[in-house]
Amino acid sequence: MEPMQSKQAAILSIGDELILGQSCDTNSAWLSYELLKHSIITAEHRTVADDRSAISLSIRSLAEQYDLLLITGGLGPTQDDMTREALGDVLNPGELLVEDLQARDDLVQWFSDRGLEIPESNFRQILRPSDMRMLHNPNGTAPGLSGVHSSCQIFALPGPPREMQPMFLNLVVPEIPKVDEAFSVRMAEVHEYGMGEAEAAQRLGEITDRNRNDRVGTTASEAIITARIRAHGSKEHAQQSCTEIADTVDRLWHPYSFGREGVTLASAVGTLLRDLQLTLVTAESCTGGWLSKTIVDVPGSSDYFLGGWITYANSMKQDNLHISEELLKQHGAVSEPVVRAMAEGALGSSQADLSVAVTGIAGPGGGTATKPVGTVFIAVGQRNSRGELSSFVRRFKFLAERSVVRDRAVKSALQMLRFTILNVTEDIPLLWQV
Amino acid sequence: MEPMQSKQAAILSIGDELILGQSCDTNSAWLSYELLKHSIITAEHRTVADDRSAISLSIRSLAEQYDLLLITGGLGPTQDDMTREALGDVLNPGELLVEDLQARDDLVQWFSDRGLEIPESNFRQILRPSDMRMLHNPNGTAPGLSGVHSSCQIFALPGPPREMQPMFLNLVVPEIPKVDEAFSVRMAEVHEYGMGEAEAAQRLGEITDRNRNDRVGTTASEAIITARIRAHGSKEHAQQSCTEIADTVDRLWHPYSFGREGVTLASAVGTLLRDLQLTLVTAESCTGGWLSKTIVDVPGSSDYFLGGWITYANSMKQDNLHISEELLKQHGAVSEPVVRAMAEGALGSSQADLSVAVTGIAGPGGGTATKPVGTVFIAVGQRNSRGELSSFVRRFKFLAERSVVRDRAVKSALQMLRFTILNVTEDIPLLWQV
Repeated sequence: MEPMQSKQAAILSIGDELILGQSCDTNSAWLSYELLKHSIITAEHRTVADDRSAISLSIRSLAEQYDLLLITGGLGPTQDDMTREALGDVLNPGELLVEDLQARDDLVQWFSDRGLEIPESNFRQILRPSDMRMLHNPNGTAPGLSGVHSSCQIFALPGPPREMQPMFLNLVVPEIPKVDEAFSVRMAEVHEYGMGEAEAAQRLGEITDRNRNDRVGTTASEAIITARIRAHGSKEHAQQSCTEIADTVDRLWHPYSFGREGVTLASAVGTLLRDLQLTLVTAESCTGGWLSKTIVDVPGSSDYFLGGWITYANSMKQDNLHISEELLKQHGAVSEPVVRAMAEGALGSSQADLSVAVTGIAGPGGGTATKPVGTVFIAVGQRNSRGELSSFVRRFKFLAERSVVRDRAVKSALQMLRFTILNVTEDIPLLWQV
Repeated sequence: MEPMQSKQAAILSIGDELILGQSCDTNSAWLSYELLKHSIITAEHRTVADDRSAISLSIRSLAEQYDLLLITGGLGPTQDDMTREALGDVLNPGELLVEDLQARDDLVQWFSDRGLEIPESNFRQILRPSDMRMLHNPNGTAPGLSGVHSSCQIFALPGPPREMQPMFLNLVVPEIPKVDEAFSVRMAEVHEYGMGEAEAAQRLGEITDRNRNDRVGTTASEAIITARIRAHGSKEHAQQSCTEIADTVDRLWHPYSFGREGVTLASAVGTLLRDLQLTLVTAESCTGGWLSKTIVDVPGSSDYFLGGWITYANSMKQDNLHISEELLKQHGAVSEPVVRAMAEGALGSSQADLSVAVTGIAGPGGGTATKPVGTVFIAVGQRNSRGELSSFVRRFKFLAERSVVRDRAVKSALQMLRFTILNVTEDIPLLWQV
């Protein structure tokens, strides 16, 4: 297709569970953001129930208004999945759906790879309107669909994000029309942890001014603050502006800024550990494995992560990290001496160079007057070149519910570890540190 | 207003940040779910940009189709907040907005309470179409609006959830028409893990028939299959139908069904462990703490969870779970003998009654011809009343990316543990078991 100046897209999400509020539609936001990377502006999101006539009415009305229509959901094997039939009502009214031979082969292969019988209902998934093409789904049994109605390009994608996202990136992106390069949009992100959103915004100053051509906004998600940068203009200009602004944000947010789009606290720490050939162990109480899980989320983490101890009960702390009953009795399991003993005990029971230990009161029960729910101690332990162990501790008070206390403890532990590796530990406070 | 039989609602969300995917619309799901509690079914969600004509077009078209329209967003003080003007274009076309005297007093009070000057732009927030009423906002400076167009009740609410939600509960709920108790709606959910969605649906048979009065649909989220039940009729009848259908689904899905709404695999296992006064430890390799994290997600898990070992490197398996170098060399770390040794080693190093161990190849690297990426061994270990240790193992092949392999391993481990406690381990296969 020839390039065009501006292109307007609509996104239609289908599902009773979405319309009834039993789950939240995250696909539309994800798709809109991806479309922007290709300089396509989304004008409307719409969600309807698993209702054949509601779906076909919406498809017809959106296809008449916009140039591109992305549909998610309703491609499953069950009776309430109606997107195929509704698309047929619009593109090939009055006709029966046809079986797609390639999709049949793919379906047979999918189940035989897994040593399973094909349930009868899955055969619904190889049907399509005769004027549509199927999009292969390597991550599930629902193929996507592609076709044109009323000059609008239509793509129907499966609802589960881990099936929808790769299908969009691999099969839809190459087919969406290119926008004229003079009207490019480029985006970048910079993430930070440890400063509040207000302070982060204040540090950015005038670059967040809404009247500028290049937009910079901040959003907060689970205490990770992200600067979202959007630059317009020719491809080169937009790209250059984006990079320059991201570099500036990175500098203004130092040392809290830990990476660009796609980088997590754990992957940033992992890159540092690998580069410096350092190894790490963990000792967790209230986070109960969450810290280690987050470290192992990063592919290749076996290069630097040896493992850890989840010492949820005191008996586990005594038997495995050799923390004395006296210390536990004297100070309590949630205390500076105990977290320090956990961090150094983990180093003592392994060959690692670094350790992180967390102990705290995540709630809802267990709080006291001096150590209320949300009190968390985090220690980073180090082994020096002579084999001597040392550690330092920070105390936090996360005023929130159980899952939030634990999430913030994991993030603070990773940022403390990052500061340690970068030698910026001494005087930089972290949010909620007390 | 007099009660009515059935009532259909639409929700319109307004905002550039939503349509561009920079933030996700959670208000629509929240409002739909709240409306259902009052037996009102939402038929459509729509999102448009901060664009006066797009907003007024949507308001007109939704008001013509539905009985109730809830609008969120676009009521702020800045130039891009256009909801007031768009409502005027629909309800009082050609007229100027009028100033609301009560809203002016409220605005003056808001700023004087905080010792602040009123920014000029905030005076936009006290304007309304002459045929609408204002809804007081004690949590912000944006009043809501209420009016009627084309027999549709319209409420416009501020976008921030902590302003929108109390305004909805306190000022909108008392005004929405009561649905006749003879036309009540009640909901329930049943969750299962270990059967595919198609088999789960097949087992439900005719109760998922869409022509029935009571609706049962299935949805899959990260391999947890949920039956969503919606019963209609008189209040008592609807509640009774819901309970009866949920009981039936639970029975048809036995032993894979693990709980109703709000129950997770980990909380179901936790309830069993607590009731039977059993204690648990974990030994994790590829899941890297995720299994333990999931167990600790449940408040009160310290009643039965002692802790665990994350033995990511082989040195950790040898030093902490006393697995011999020979065993590791002979069979490899990902093998039945090693996972068995992990499960029994964890029991040997603790006082727990039960253990779960996981070892596998999560990828992307590390796969071999006989043990491809996705190969996972899971063992459940038990200590009997004479103190003797035993264990059994299942082997899985999760053909998916790293995070999915690990997620399914965690869920399979919890379901295996649940089967063990319930004595249904022997002959019930789990999805992806090989």
